[in-house]
Amino acid sequence: MSDRPIGVFDSGLGGLTVLKEITKILPNENVVYFGDTARVPYGPRSKETVMKYTFQAINFLMSKNVKAIVIACNTATARCLKEANEKYNIPIIGVIEAGARTAAYSTKNKIVGVIGTEGTVRSKAYNTEIGKLDKDIKIIDRACNLFVPIVEEGWSNSEIATLTAKKYLQDLIDQGIDSLVLGCTHYPLLKRTIGEVVGEEIKLVNPAKETAKDLKKILEDENLVRLAENNKPYYEYYVSDIPERFANIAAEFLKREIQGVKNVEIQKY
Amino acid sequence: MSDRPIGVFDSGLGGLTVLKEITKILPNENVVYFGDTARVPYGPRSKETVMKYTFQAINFLMSKNVKAIVIACNTATARCLKEANEKYNIPIIGVIEAGARTAAYSTKNKIVGVIGTEGTVRSKAYNTEIGKLDKDIKIIDRACNLFVPIVEEGWSNSEIATLTAKKYLQDLIDQGIDSLVLGCTHYPLLKRTIGEVVGEEIKLVNPAKETAKDLKKILEDENLVRLAENNKPYYEYYVSDIPERFANIAAEFLKREIQGVKNVEIQKY
Repeated sequence: MSDRPIGVFDSGLGGLTVLKEITKILPNENVVYFGDTARVPYGPRSKETVMKYTFQAINFLMSKNVKAIVIACNTATARCLKEANEKYNIPIIGVIEAGARTAAYSTKNKIVGVIGTEGTVRSKAYNTEIGKLDKDIKIIDRACNLFVPIVEEGWSNSEIATLTAKKYLQDLIDQGIDSLVLGCTHYPLLKRTIGEVVGEEIKLVNPAKETAKDLKKILEDENLVRLAENNKPYYEYYVSDIPERFANIAAEFLKREIQGVKNVEIQKY
Repeated sequence: MSDRPIGVFDSGLGGLTVLKEITKILPNENVVYFGDTARVPYGPRSKETVMKYTFQAINFLMSKNVKAIVIACNTATARCLKEANEKYNIPIIGVIEAGARTAAYSTKNKIVGVIGTEGTVRSKAYNTEIGKLDKDIKIIDRACNLFVPIVEEGWSNSEIATLTAKKYLQDLIDQGIDSLVLGCTHYPLLKRTIGEVVGEEIKLVNPAKETAKDLKKILEDENLVRLAENNKPYYEYYVSDIPERFANIAAEFLKREIQGVKNVEIQKY
């Protein structure tokens, strides 16, 4: 049972930051990643469409015999994590809850910044989750639409990235945030640049890292952790459009070459 | 007959640059604009999907009794302009042919640069059209993925825009291009910044402008130009998702307020 892989799913390749955190704290786990690159972005789509796509992704991962699934996509988490847990019998976790919890516990002055894509910010998903934990926390949110293409160009540590971060974040700094949620799976790659712009006084919350911790706890509780004495773990990558482009950008995310990315006809699942 | 409006269609709001050029040289024309903002971008979608979406957009515009249609979307033009002309009885023109023709005639040294979104560049649509006119022209193309979000943030004339343009275009300048096709409907808003970066020696080709000229010629040939003595022309705007966001960015494109943007359930057409 514990040899079965963990499934990680994102609308594109941002979820690789979650995969990376999982491999850091659960280094013996087998992992199957699916990126729905033909249908990215999910942000502007209706709840029904996102649910349909998410269930197709989960069905595909189930066909790979996964023991648990991480929905490493903010939109899919916000729109249908609950429904996914009702429908399937394995543990399924999202990226929002862990990040929201960490932000709620780490803020001292109760002013938290949340940045993400237009879709995530408009969904108010982090605001809702943080509000459930502490309704006195004031949230200042901001869509940072240049960050994803900057990361995908490999420009995360450039003057353009720094200037862009200043333009987006100055207002949040001025409003006194003491914690900043990186509410898009691409943003951990901008951590150094964002950290330099906001300064050490503001704590950066990386939901990818917190989600990996939650996953570890669930596997431990259910006695599903894969043991070190087994064979070397495998990593499989599947996408719904051109594998080559994914492999190039994935190398930037994971800081290592990845090979054998396969295409999957996701609409069949 | 000549009172009937011109239909302009784009996957999003980039097509407004084409609308703007049309209103400049055909100031008496009524215009109906449709932006398929719920399903943007078309770039990563299959030919079948793009064709289905484009035909729905054309059906919608036909329901508004248009006399001619401009497909102001590079992807839709590349994938199904021919099929659209076979299926419908009114003149339908795209944005690629006019831009390609202008580039082919304006280059002296036969080295032409083409910039656009990842989808347009990968489609090689401009390369194909330019090649039909002069197969000796060498084309250097480059996807400039930050340009669209820079325009949409309203940052077209900023230091970020200049640095980004330098990063994308230096290689094209070094390779000796003497003409540069702005192969994405958003890019005319970056004309000043791009012009400063590439210098006066390199001619910028704006397909939106050339397409408007083609439209004018077709209307003249078919005796369809609307006359100045008629009532003031009307402009109607329709989108497939949230009208408010469109109105805000459209003001940036057109340099004037627009009102009464309406939502249309495009999948019904």
